[in-house]
Amino acid sequence: MTPLRNILFIMCDQLRADYLGCYGHATIRTPNLDDLASRSVRFDRAYVQSPVCGPSRMSFYTGRYVSSHGANWNRTPLRVDERTMADFLTPMGIEPAIVGKTHIKADTETLGRLGVHEDTVDQRLEGGFVDIARDDGVHRNAAVDGDIAYNRYLRSKGFDGENPWETWANSASGPDGEILSAWSLRNARQPARIPEAYSETAYMTDRAIEYIEAKGDDPWCLHLSYIKPHWPYMAPAPYNDMYGPDDIKPAIRSDAEKDDPHPIAQVMMAEGDSMAFHQDEARETIIPTYMGLISQIDAHVGRILATLKAIGRDQDTLVVFTSDHGDFLGDHWLADKAMFYEPGVRIPLIVYDPRPEADKTRGSVCDDLVEAIDLVPTFLGAVDGPSSHRLEGQSLIPVLHGTGNSGREAVFSELDYGYIATGRELALPATQSVGRMVRTKDWKYVHFQTLPCQLFDLRNDPDELRNLGADPDYADIRAEMQGHLLEWQLALRSRVTETDEDVSSWLDRMLARGAEKSAW
Amino acid sequence: MTPLRNILFIMCDQLRADYLGCYGHATIRTPNLDDLASRSVRFDRAYVQSPVCGPSRMSFYTGRYVSSHGANWNRTPLRVDERTMADFLTPMGIEPAIVGKTHIKADTETLGRLGVHEDTVDQRLEGGFVDIARDDGVHRNAAVDGDIAYNRYLRSKGFDGENPWETWANSASGPDGEILSAWSLRNARQPARIPEAYSETAYMTDRAIEYIEAKGDDPWCLHLSYIKPHWPYMAPAPYNDMYGPDDIKPAIRSDAEKDDPHPIAQVMMAEGDSMAFHQDEARETIIPTYMGLISQIDAHVGRILATLKAIGRDQDTLVVFTSDHGDFLGDHWLADKAMFYEPGVRIPLIVYDPRPEADKTRGSVCDDLVEAIDLVPTFLGAVDGPSSHRLEGQSLIPVLHGTGNSGREAVFSELDYGYIATGRELALPATQSVGRMVRTKDWKYVHFQTLPCQLFDLRNDPDELRNLGADPDYADIRAEMQGHLLEWQLALRSRVTETDEDVSSWLDRMLARGAEKSAW
Repeated sequence: MTPLRNILFIMCDQLRADYLGCYGHATIRTPNLDDLASRSVRFDRAYVQSPVCGPSRMSFYTGRYVSSHGANWNRTPLRVDERTMADFLTPMGIEPAIVGKTHIKADTETLGRLGVHEDTVDQRLEGGFVDIARDDGVHRNAAVDGDIAYNRYLRSKGFDGENPWETWANSASGPDGEILSAWSLRNARQPARIPEAYSETAYMTDRAIEYIEAKGDDPWCLHLSYIKPHWPYMAPAPYNDMYGPDDIKPAIRSDAEKDDPHPIAQVMMAEGDSMAFHQDEARETIIPTYMGLISQIDAHVGRILATLKAIGRDQDTLVVFTSDHGDFLGDHWLADKAMFYEPGVRIPLIVYDPRPEADKTRGSVCDDLVEAIDLVPTFLGAVDGPSSHRLEGQSLIPVLHGTGNSGREAVFSELDYGYIATGRELALPATQSVGRMVRTKDWKYVHFQTLPCQLFDLRNDPDELRNLGADPDYADIRAEMQGHLLEWQLALRSRVTETDEDVSSWLDRMLARGAEKSAW
Repeated sequence: MTPLRNILFIMCDQLRADYLGCYGHATIRTPNLDDLASRSVRFDRAYVQSPVCGPSRMSFYTGRYVSSHGANWNRTPLRVDERTMADFLTPMGIEPAIVGKTHIKADTETLGRLGVHEDTVDQRLEGGFVDIARDDGVHRNAAVDGDIAYNRYLRSKGFDGENPWETWANSASGPDGEILSAWSLRNARQPARIPEAYSETAYMTDRAIEYIEAKGDDPWCLHLSYIKPHWPYMAPAPYNDMYGPDDIKPAIRSDAEKDDPHPIAQVMMAEGDSMAFHQDEARETIIPTYMGLISQIDAHVGRILATLKAIGRDQDTLVVFTSDHGDFLGDHWLADKAMFYEPGVRIPLIVYDPRPEADKTRGSVCDDLVEAIDLVPTFLGAVDGPSSHRLEGQSLIPVLHGTGNSGREAVFSELDYGYIATGRELALPATQSVGRMVRTKDWKYVHFQTLPCQLFDLRNDPDELRNLGADPDYADIRAEMQGHLLEWQLALRSRVTETDEDVSSWLDRMLARGAEKSAW
């Protein structure tokens, strides 16, 4: 089989699976992604390893669970000896490039201990990626880093200020010329002050197209990592006005959930953004804009795909479209993400393999349980790269080629609640603050270290409205799910400094050195 | 409380707990260690994190379980960002020195990727220890490293040859002047060719005493890590002849164990060294020498303790005496170690704290469940060092001072059977070859990834002769023990690049930067 030469790995931020036309949304318009899906395999049960950006992304990039890579929150430094997809692809001559968001942070403390100067390891600081236009998004406080590339770009186009990301791209103009910030959710329907062509999604797409065109015939892996439709929710015209209240889906929630909430949910429901989504007015204001931002991404993905086709790269490029996690949008009385309900952990995943071997699966829907960590093995499989003992995912190429299925009985996701208000309100010790989800086809079990568990019967309660975590009738199911958690944990790849081959060949190597043990 | 200034951390290799006088052995003579115990706390239920040298030692040195540090076999490189006791003590101005065995191997592959040249990180290659006379022992094949310091020492004393470690220190002379190798167990009662004063234990003790005397009033932590009584079993006179067949304890084993063995045990029972120990003649030949090697160590520990006293260091030095794992010596029809029966995983642990606060516990026996990983926190507690979020053990200082107990419900130990004959004979995949033990006061459960489990009722079967792993009457106990394993795994400290304080303070830090989320 001919290996592919390039990889286009498109990620959205906070795009839940059910907000694409091809995933069944009744009103959203995503013609380019729907068309891509018609030529791809669309995975209907794809899950992230954590419902928060940073830990989820580190799992996407390393092919390892959060328990293994250890970077369990946003900007938690990645251990210096973790390997990312970039580290695997670089030695193959495939340049790993980043446009947009990664949340990768290097462990400069350890580098310093080892006497490694930061200026000698530029690429290492980006997780091995070549920085084309890295931008981690959400730059509210310009003091944090006002000099980001996108701000420089905006200023070069005449959008001045200390932080035009905030004051132009994520603000609207009021009737009297005042600036209406997207941080106030009530402003979500207003058009951003900048023209669409200069918005974040357009800017990143421009950089991506430039990169692909400039690379010519040299092999590349471009991680185009949009920072939308993540909040702040504000879209440039015409996308701010593309959808209205009639286009939105009803919230998935029940009064019982609010009356007897899980302790974690109780804290999160009371936060400002969640409280907003309790009101119909907020949902009717925000969700149309969320949908507009998605349609905008769809349009720009269309531009990229057209570029690939125009220069013939559509024939030798693996294209992946996915997201780092979902968005509750008021479901379960919650905003944002950070719990394990389906709208938080289930992601869109569309994988296009142009080779003839994939012809028989084109346009198909796969309902195997698959995980974010499956992408690195898939990338390596597509370009005929080496496997690695470090990887905890498995290649999806057999699914794409109709020669196998994922075979997973369960998927797993993790989150440390110690960082946020949940940790403080519930007095969770930083060492006992992690929640872990195991989801099979029929059940979802969420284990918390010092709090009650959650259990949902996905066959009879697909909306996860009835928590069976304390129901004595389901003790056997909970035990079964704990068994999955245990086997999962015990199979994690903590032995990173030696390969599987090192293990299996050890005895022979010892014998060859004459080091056998004593005998009578 | 006055912090201590020095730490003397004495480790034996392969010394099982019940082969010291103070641990109840009826015939062995260990007067110096018994005397030390009379001034210390003697821990009666101390367990290693792995019953093999390398992984066990990495747990001793890092204060972390094998699942966390990942160095799961002998000479498996330690991840470059793992911190050892040496790394914690060095910044305090306490020099961490090594005499003897560590099995530490640096991850030179990762160092190379980071552009770190080995000659700039000498101490790093030793796990942070200052190399006084490192010697990992068992140098059968001189080609591996004939130029070890002990060989140079032996040659300087006139004991020539390519590998005098083997041909002088671990060989005897036959009646016709021929060399009788200690690799043949039948030679175990013969005296080593070298005089006792040049044997490994004496040599290492000399180096330790020189070091302690030379340090004067400068604070130090000396890890004196004897490589005996580990095989090859051969002692210099008079220790070869100090004990005889009448002095040895009967083997702990039953015919039923041999008739219906666990698959792992079945493979190990059939190995040459185990087969030897099936014969009374072999036990009567080897065990007296094993005991002699222990009495030799006792004598040399006596020299060190006398040195401490002579120079006043007995007043400001924490003294720990322990071992990296045990030795089956024919128990359960096994030689060596590498299974989780008590003679393999239970170790002697004697901790002497000279401060008045420890007066009320002197000479006491503690039957709390404690682990090898408790030593790094104990060291840091003794010298008033900082705690670390990486550490998975807990300080024993409260036990020493009579102000608390270990509070552990269970101890854990792990071993990867993929490296050895068990892996090959049982066709264990390298990714599914690990056994894990959980031991409470009453039960021991051993979980294997693809093999049947073991369960022992330690109250009614303290010799672990009846495996209840498949007995349906004990399903609830097995479930309870699996619950312990799960909670243990889920609490491992995989977040190494951020501290507990980083977690708990995150929200405040974000709020201080004005990065709160949206609201209506």
